[in-house]
Amino acid sequence: MSQQVSRKKNYVEVCFTPEDYSYFKGRFDIVVVIDVLRATSAICSAINNGLKSVIPVSTVEEALEYKAKGYLVGAERQGEIVEGFDIGNSPYSYMDPELIGKEVALTTTNGTRAINIASEAETVIIGSLINLQAVVDWLESQGKDVLCLCSGWKDKFNLEDTICGGAIADALINTGKFTSDEDSSVAAKYLFQSARGNYMGYLKSSSHRRRLKKLNLNKDIKYCLTPNQMDVIPILIDGKIVKMEA
Amino acid sequence: MSQQVSRKKNYVEVCFTPEDYSYFKGRFDIVVVIDVLRATSAICSAINNGLKSVIPVSTVEEALEYKAKGYLVGAERQGEIVEGFDIGNSPYSYMDPELIGKEVALTTTNGTRAINIASEAETVIIGSLINLQAVVDWLESQGKDVLCLCSGWKDKFNLEDTICGGAIADALINTGKFTSDEDSSVAAKYLFQSARGNYMGYLKSSSHRRRLKKLNLNKDIKYCLTPNQMDVIPILIDGKIVKMEA
Repeated sequence: MSQQVSRKKNYVEVCFTPEDYSYFKGRFDIVVVIDVLRATSAICSAINNGLKSVIPVSTVEEALEYKAKGYLVGAERQGEIVEGFDIGNSPYSYMDPELIGKEVALTTTNGTRAINIASEAETVIIGSLINLQAVVDWLESQGKDVLCLCSGWKDKFNLEDTICGGAIADALINTGKFTSDEDSSVAAKYLFQSARGNYMGYLKSSSHRRRLKKLNLNKDIKYCLTPNQMDVIPILIDGKIVKMEA
Repeated sequence: MSQQVSRKKNYVEVCFTPEDYSYFKGRFDIVVVIDVLRATSAICSAINNGLKSVIPVSTVEEALEYKAKGYLVGAERQGEIVEGFDIGNSPYSYMDPELIGKEVALTTTNGTRAINIASEAETVIIGSLINLQAVVDWLESQGKDVLCLCSGWKDKFNLEDTICGGAIADALINTGKFTSDEDSSVAAKYLFQSARGNYMGYLKSSSHRRRLKKLNLNKDIKYCLTPNQMDVIPILIDGKIVKMEA
């Protein structure tokens, strides 16, 4: 029999909303901010396209200041582009080759707020279904305690972010190096396990999918719910989200 | 073909914690307060045993005042009986035939607080797995909007209350007379559907079950997770929980 080296497991937990973050704050080395529909999917797409950085700003007022300084600025509220801005948080807006090397400021209803709330943590990375496996692999290699912070919808629980958090927790726990302690993490894992392989169907009754469907954003939804399209991991450094260097 | 009478559906939603209640407050005619492990299971057992009323109090200080007045008083914190009190929130404490016709004051970590938070609603009833079907049947007959308020654990999500809320939502939606709109309700329904028939196994990794197991409360857990043991529906009237008259 081979000798077992006993090693303390790291924690991976899922926090449902920015509002709940106060119960988790300070206990985790790495926070993964998740806003599947659509902020963190847009940010991953932007960084994957070669943008130099995305600057997350919480308010429309701050976004206007960046606009005045000549930045390209994305602004979304209630799923729609805010009046006076050219783009919102559709991932497709950030795939234009003309944007390569540029910096963009972004404010969204939930996602950028969650990023700014998490910014007190040692390390903040950006997760979504489209870069799921890359995030899992990197987290596995770190040996740190991880919190998946779901952006929710206006401080309420949402299903798609929870499933993405559950997917990360499930994969990390399956490595044998992680454990979880909170019922929110157990529930997220269970929800991911039943949704696996059929995100579109599973989310058909979710409130946000209905909201975006009304806005004719089905193409965005399908893109955001298709896992593992890229290996990029965006990371927050000095207030700007940039590409994590390998 | 028979003529269809079109009728607006009622809402049934699930709120995960007392902390989240502010997002739901005021929109529902009936609130079902749920604290499966163990406050609402204890209250159902007490009313089923023939106690005249259970008076929910939020603080240990208030409970001491009732004790000074000669009331029988139950007080639980962290799963244990508070020092200076004779009973806590074990359902078995409320099954003594000597208690028939008596009034008891009760304070618990989560459940009685949730009851008092919900008390501004038109109608507040007490639900648990042990009286699940009775609650569902009565709610179906009312034609009102229903909120299932989970007590959680110190304002954090818990799995057992959510599954009980999901069971109520699932059953009401299946009658065709109810619908739900919130992702928390969709998730609760999904979690109930995967837990159905195996609550003990499903909850084995839940934080509260582990907490109670450490306290040697496995007998309580098994009792609280066995559905449909009684038809009684406790209802809050003028600050006291009494038996709903048929």
